[in-house]
Amino acid sequence: MIGAGLIGGSLLRAVGKAGRAVWGTSASEETAAQARVDGFDVGTDTDAALRRAAEADALVVLAVPLPALPAVLRRVDAVAPTCRLTDAVSVKVAVADAVARLAPRARYVGGHPMAGTAESGWSAGAAGLFTDAAWVVATDDGADAEVWADVAELAWACGARVVPAASDEHDLAVARVSHLPHLLAAVLAAVGAAGEDELPLALAASSFADGTRVAGTRPELVLAMCEGNRDALLAAVDDALGRLGAMRGALASTGGLAATVHAGHEGRLRWAAARDPQLLRVHRGTAPDELRAIGRRGDAVAGWSG
Amino acid sequence: MIGAGLIGGSLLRAVGKAGRAVWGTSASEETAAQARVDGFDVGTDTDAALRRAAEADALVVLAVPLPALPAVLRRVDAVAPTCRLTDAVSVKVAVADAVARLAPRARYVGGHPMAGTAESGWSAGAAGLFTDAAWVVATDDGADAEVWADVAELAWACGARVVPAASDEHDLAVARVSHLPHLLAAVLAAVGAAGEDELPLALAASSFADGTRVAGTRPELVLAMCEGNRDALLAAVDDALGRLGAMRGALASTGGLAATVHAGHEGRLRWAAARDPQLLRVHRGTAPDELRAIGRRGDAVAGWSG
Repeated sequence: MIGAGLIGGSLLRAVGKAGRAVWGTSASEETAAQARVDGFDVGTDTDAALRRAAEADALVVLAVPLPALPAVLRRVDAVAPTCRLTDAVSVKVAVADAVARLAPRARYVGGHPMAGTAESGWSAGAAGLFTDAAWVVATDDGADAEVWADVAELAWACGARVVPAASDEHDLAVARVSHLPHLLAAVLAAVGAAGEDELPLALAASSFADGTRVAGTRPELVLAMCEGNRDALLAAVDDALGRLGAMRGALASTGGLAATVHAGHEGRLRWAAARDPQLLRVHRGTAPDELRAIGRRGDAVAGWSG
Repeated sequence: MIGAGLIGGSLLRAVGKAGRAVWGTSASEETAAQARVDGFDVGTDTDAALRRAAEADALVVLAVPLPALPAVLRRVDAVAPTCRLTDAVSVKVAVADAVARLAPRARYVGGHPMAGTAESGWSAGAAGLFTDAAWVVATDDGADAEVWADVAELAWACGARVVPAASDEHDLAVARVSHLPHLLAAVLAAVGAAGEDELPLALAASSFADGTRVAGTRPELVLAMCEGNRDALLAAVDDALGRLGAMRGALASTGGLAATVHAGHEGRLRWAAARDPQLLRVHRGTAPDELRAIGRRGDAVAGWSG
């Protein structure tokens, strides 16, 4: 496990709890010391951890923010060039590009466990963070089937369900349902705080509290996430701008907001209906296009069949 | 109490619990019957309830949606033309205009208890709905000081704090922190559900769940609230559109989102800091401009002094 923050620290705990051998490394001596106090095998020597992974043919998991990735990938290429490799970064195309450039011999299959809180750091982690969460496993044509299975088994060991998706369709989806919510929350918080007096914020109730909650996330985390998904995010922002502009036009002309409000209500109902995905079992080595079809239907993979 | 839905029903319970005489009326026989089963004096004869209020010189509270208001105001003018009158509608200028047109002799001071849930109807009501909530009491120049005091005492009896504000500044404030959140939630829910497959909604996690929560509100309630505040809402929507457009430009040109994300983070921190208003006591008959200054500072009135 490279990185022992919220995600890496939670993975160390979850994998350890599942009874599998796991060791990690952190760029911060303080974080590594905290993890050791809690009984985990975490140091600060990335090369040593990678060398050990190469010797054991272990799956290397990159749980560092996108901006920290290039430096880590250079060490992978130097120390464990052909290792089994995955990651927990919230964008997939940018990571795949970086791996292809900086650690091209690695047997890489991307991953994205869809879990998190507004907190960060080792102490915010928990073994149960991934329970019943969606864990996207990148399912591009030509993906290494053995490493794909490794990543799926890691997700299942952590209590998550596997959602197979191509890297680019993952990025378009999270732009809409994860990155755009952060940007709209930021805009809403800024509008609420923009007045010259305190009256608006004093009158803000639950609709404002919920709508701006993720604006409380540490800005550098939001920036790393959103800026790494620029093209997909532009499409999502343009969709939102188009709908907001059409609504503005209707409000100014007829005063009617029915189209906007009804479309939003239907979207929320569709979201609620999607909370209970069908959990399937698949044969090891199922073809990527068959796996991707499962994700597009909104279903997920929970284990091997047969 | 004219109306026994979420707000009217909660007011009946809270006022009754405070030991004050209260009776009500509902347009729905079913609602009135439910309220009577729960021990409340609620009928369906609005004229009778208003006549009784006129005889007792009681404060009449209009707790009906904005579109239902004109018909009720005509009954007020016919049966209790000079009654003490307030309301619980979420916009203030439109109600004041309707009162001036349809019940011009009423001694009207507007009110807006800032509480609610996504639920509605008598059964969703609760005596504690207004506990520690902000309750805006319209504080326009020339307001009837005696009725202003009646409305303030009603709010305090329900456990709320009084936020004095002019009708128009109230409407501008709630456009930003209450109506705009509903519209952005609707836009976000529509963008999330817009794709041709189920993958985006399957990957939607807590940022999307929180950001779209109020899109689950009954559309007719959102429409009544937002469409009744058209001018103030246009200003808030234009502010949001301007910020979103600037962000889009920055994302497309430099790829940088720092300005947006930092402004949002600061806004959310300012909101958090405003959660603990100073609670003041004022003399009965304090001048409107002095009262409004309290609201603009983000503070509130909790009782009479001296």
